[in-house]
Formats: sequence, C-alpha cells, structure tokens
Amino acid sequence: MTVARDQIIETTCELLEVQGYHATGLNQIIKESGSPKGSLYYYFPGGKEELTAEALSRVGQMVLERIRYNLGLADDPAEAVRAFIERIAQQVEASGYRAGGPITTVALETASSNDRLREVCQQIYTSWQLAFVEKLARGGVEPERAERLATLIIAAIEGGIILCRTRRSPQPLLAVSEEIGRLVAHSQ
Amino acid sequence: MTVARDQIIETTCELLEVQGYHATGLNQIIKESGSPKGSLYYYFPGGKEELTAEALSRVGQMVLERIRYNLGLADDPAEAVRAFIERIAQQVEASGYRAGGPITTVALETASSNDRLREVCQQIYTSWQLAFVEKLARGGVEPERAERLATLIIAAIEGGIILCRTRRSPQPLLAVSEEIGRLVAHSQ
Repeated sequence: MTVARDQIIETTCELLEVQGYHATGLNQIIKESGSPKGSLYYYFPGGKEELTAEALSRVGQMVLERIRYNLGLADDPAEAVRAFIERIAQQVEASGYRAGGPITTVALETASSNDRLREVCQQIYTSWQLAFVEKLARGGVEPERAERLATLIIAAIEGGIILCRTRRSPQPLLAVSEEIGRLVAHSQ
Repeated sequence: MTVARDQIIETTCELLEVQGYHATGLNQIIKESGSPKGSLYYYFPGGKEELTAEALSRVGQMVLERIRYNLGLADDPAEAVRAFIERIAQQVEASGYRAGGPITTVALETASSNDRLREVCQQIYTSWQLAFVEKLARGGVEPERAERLATLIIAAIEGGIILCRTRRSPQPLLAVSEEIGRLVAHSQ
C-alpha cells in the first residue's frame, strides 16, 4: 500500500461520508487528496466505482474495529451498547454534525442503482451486526434474540445519526442509547 | 392547486425518494412529469430548492397522515406500532426495495449543505415523532419516556429501511418491529 494510494482512499472515505456518492467527483478527490490525476487512474483503473468500493471496505473495517473495541470496554452488554451509542452522539456533535454514518448516504444512493456497491454496503452492515450479536450472546442473550436486537441496534444508530445531523443535536442518539440499553438489559 | 403544478410536485417526490436531491435534475423532473419547461419555472421561480422544499412538505404531510391512520387501527400502542412497522416492511418489499424513507436521502444530503432543506426535514421528523408521542401518551406512557421511545421508533424505522433496501429483504424491519413492540409493551 503506497502513501499516494492511501491518501486517495482516505480522502474518498471522508467525501463519501459527508456528501455521498453522487456528489463526490473524481476531480474533487484528486484536488483534495493532492494527487496527480494520473495516479488515481493508475491505482484505480475501474474509476469512481472501484475507488468507492475500496473506500467503503476500508471505512467498514475501521468501524468494525471501533465497535469491537468499544464493546470490549464493559462486560455487561447493555452497558457496553449504551456507552457506545453515547460515544457516537458525541462524535457526531464534535464533527459539527457533518460526519457520522460513514456509509449511510452511499448505501441509500446505491441501493437501487449500483449492485456492486450495494453488496459492499450489505457486507459491511452484516459484519457490524455480527459484532453486536457476539457481544449479546456472550452476555447470555439467546441467539435468535441477539440477532434481532443487533439488527435494531444498527438500524437505530443509522437512523439516529440522520436525526442528530438533521436536528443539529446529540439528543436523538442519546434517547436511542438509553432505550436500547434498557431493552438489552431486559433481554439477558 | 393546478394539475400541472401538482404533477411536477408528485414527480419530484418520487425522484427524491428513489435517488435523492443531488441526482435529481430539473430536466428529469420536466421529462418525467410531462410538463413544459416554462411551467416549472413559472410555478417554482426558486428552482430546484424551492420545488424540493415543497415536495418534501407534501410527502411529509402524507406520511404523517399515514402514521396517524395506522396508529389509530389498534388501541394498544405496542400493537399499533408493531403493525405499522410491519406494514412499512411490506411496502419496501413491494416497491422492489426502491422506495421507502421518502425524505431520508435528502435529509442526509442536505444536513451539512443546505440549511433551508435541512430545516424542512427537521420539521417533518418532529411532526412524525409527535404522532408517536401522542399515541404512547394516550396508552399511559409517561411523557418523557414517550418522547424518547418516539425518537427511537423514528430512528429505527429510518435505519431499518436502509438495511432492508441494502439487503433486499424485509427482515431488518421485521426484527425492528418485534423488538420495538416488546419495548413499548414494557413501557406502559
């Protein structure tokens, strides 16, 4: 992995998070990453779609590691999940409500229009969900219930980020955090 | 309200839901609504932003009425909310996973870039949330809790629609429906 290739991917991750797939043009990526135009096509001959798939995978893996790390900070799943969602609320607020939900916009934009990117998003969501299923199962939640709860957790975080950004307030995710924490506590 | 103006707004609602704000151009709206170009600028001198604000308000009001109608179908809030979310799962499936979440993409796209449209989205989310708060409160949930639960419900529906469209399956919203129903039942 070269520095130049890395820089292009990182810039793409940021732009996809803040403005989505359609609004992100290759020229902006070239400009903001400080890369010569040729290097983008050299590293990503498949162009914008290939670069986006790569950027999504990168950010998906980073978030997965963050989920695993945060869920490891408390033994009790209810406490771990509640604290993790609170942390997301703080991060969304700290970004000035620009960031949060690194793949959400792209997932929505490509769901009906680009099967390759849709599948990348799907795999990422599944990997995140699995990390919650494992935590819940270790805490004594039975498998089928853990599966459903993990789906609700991912859905409520994704939607909660949208509400926070739209309202310019951490409140929606804090409400989600408290209610989800309560539900998980009762499921054990 | 003339037929031509109405047709332009309806076409815009559909395009915004399926492909979002950035991907929707005035030319496509003109073409798909079958309106002469002049009539679009005649009815919406503010162009795309004004038309989008109008379309969002229209669809926000329609969804609000649908929420109220559906929540009125069962006395018990837990049952009413569960059935409503199940119905959304069916609708998303019936659309071939193209539709669902009529303002979600626009809310995300405009959160950091267009304050006027962000505020329109915010008002719509608040109006939907209030409909749930009222139903929960009538069912005996205390006001602060009803507020939090309603936030979780909107967040989980928004996120659940994204997961359904990405996975091409009604499963995520069905899981959300079951778990939210359980949580609401325990809150009364």
